[in-house]
Parts: sequence; structure tokens; C-alpha cells
Amino acid sequence: MAIKIRKLKKKDKAALIEILQNTPEFTAEEVVIAEEVIDGSLDNPDKSGYFSLAAENEEGVLIGFISYGPVPMTQYAWDIYWLAVKSEFQGYGTGATLLKAAEGKIAQTGGRMVFIETSGKAQYDKTRRFYINNDYKEVCNITDFYAPGDDKVIYQKIL
Amino acid sequence: MAIKIRKLKKKDKAALIEILQNTPEFTAEEVVIAEEVIDGSLDNPDKSGYFSLAAENEEGVLIGFISYGPVPMTQYAWDIYWLAVKSEFQGYGTGATLLKAAEGKIAQTGGRMVFIETSGKAQYDKTRRFYINNDYKEVCNITDFYAPGDDKVIYQKIL
Repeated sequence: MAIKIRKLKKKDKAALIEILQNTPEFTAEEVVIAEEVIDGSLDNPDKSGYFSLAAENEEGVLIGFISYGPVPMTQYAWDIYWLAVKSEFQGYGTGATLLKAAEGKIAQTGGRMVFIETSGKAQYDKTRRFYINNDYKEVCNITDFYAPGDDKVIYQKIL
Repeated sequence: MAIKIRKLKKKDKAALIEILQNTPEFTAEEVVIAEEVIDGSLDNPDKSGYFSLAAENEEGVLIGFISYGPVPMTQYAWDIYWLAVKSEFQGYGTGATLLKAAEGKIAQTGGRMVFIETSGKAQYDKTRRFYINNDYKEVCNITDFYAPGDDKVIYQKIL
């Protein structure tokens, strides 16, 4: 499958929200917050500090996106906020392509380390494996952070 | 010294900014961000997610403040964002009194864990000792997070 990475556009919004709503790892609250980040990146990335990239297939269909931004008060640390790939298009490397594209943009602007936070719950095993396979290392684990039995795991990649 | 803890008011703003600007641990960028948090807590704490408390002495002079708020997407985790005490009034327990007052408010609204992030640099030794003396435990240390040689240390207290 040929994947094209491009800037996210305002016309992608409806397709994006549909992807978020159909991603079982995201709660309703997370979809609302992800939408705020997406809006910030569409309106004014330099002001909001939120940047997004889209992935589309050879037919021009939006199949995934990534949102990221610099960590305030740091010299070169960046966060990946959201990464999602439409379920029927998972398994073709779209997530890894989006992640590498974001890392490339981050490095271009002087970023030198990237962080991703996720849950330690069993249903996020695939997510955590994905980051480890993409050379992210666990640097922090906070027990019961999100809720009882739901730890926060922080991954880091040095660029 | 008798310390009174009360809600922060709009009329405190100028005195607050002066305290921030005269706190050597804060950079100019940090003062700007702290001001955004303070404004959010003055305008609408429930909407902004930022809450603040003020400390005044027996003469009604503002001598310190604390800002804190719930961590989005968590069930009961809260962050302490900013805590400052006017330099000539340090050493009388005002910081600890502000911290305990914030912890009390957090516990009242169902919060069960509190996080504080600070720098690992030598000039923050006093700050880190203060948190340890107030029963915060180090849960994470990220090398060179803020800048080369400037680690981030995360402290946690279970309420």
C-alpha cells in the first residue's frame, strides 16, 4: 500500500473525528481533547504549539494522523500527543511512517528528544510494542496514574 | 508569623507578578507561562482547570501563592503548577502552608495523588529538599529534559 504523508487540512476534520471515534483505545474524553489539539494545529501551529500530519492512501483517502508539539520551557523536548490509523488500514506500516515523518519534522526544527505517554493496561500492549519497535525506551512508569490499575508509561526516543 | 490562606483575587495580580519576577528560580519564559495559569485561575478555574490560593501576612500583604489543577484524562491525579513565596518572607513555613492548603482542596474534590515537577540542577536543591520534607517521593527522573545538564525530576505524594 502506497502511503502519502501530507499536512493536515481543514477538510480532513470529519474523517479524522470518525477515525478517533472508531479507535477503541480512545475514551470519549480523549476524543474531545484530541479534537482541541487538532483544531489548534489547523488554526495556527506556531501559536497553539500543536502540529499535525495526515496519511492518505493511493486513492486520496485519509487513513491516519499524528499530532505533536514542543514541550514548553524545554530547549529541545517534543511530545507526540495523538497517533491513530483507521482500523481497516492497520498493519501496513502507516503508524510507523507517520511517526518517522513527525520525528523528521521535529529534528528539522532542532528537537532532540521525543516523548510519548500511554497506558500500562493490557489493552494497550499493542500500542506499547509499537513504540518499542520504533526505538522508544521506557523512562518512567507511574502506578495507578490514570485510574486504579491503569499506570502511565512514558517512552522516550533520542533523535 | 501568622499566615492566612485565601482565594487569589484579581487585585493581587500586580503583587504576584512582582513575586514571580523576583524569584531567581523562574526564567522569563516561566513567568509568562505562570501568568497564563494565574489568569486562568482568576477567570474561571472550572473551565481553565487552574486553581490558585494566596498567602498573606497579618498586615494583609500578599507573600506567596500556589497554582494547581487536575490532570486531564485521569481519575484523581493533580498537578502543582507553581508555588512561590516572596524572598524576604521565606523560612517561616509559608510554602508548606500553601502546599498543605492546596492538598486539602485537592483531597476535598476527590484528588488522590499530587505531582510536582522540578529541575535537577544544583540551584534547585532547596526546592527539591522542600518537596521531600513535605512527603513527596521522586517517581521519575529524565536526563537532560529541560536542556543539557538540566534533568526533570517528578515528585509524587499520595493523599
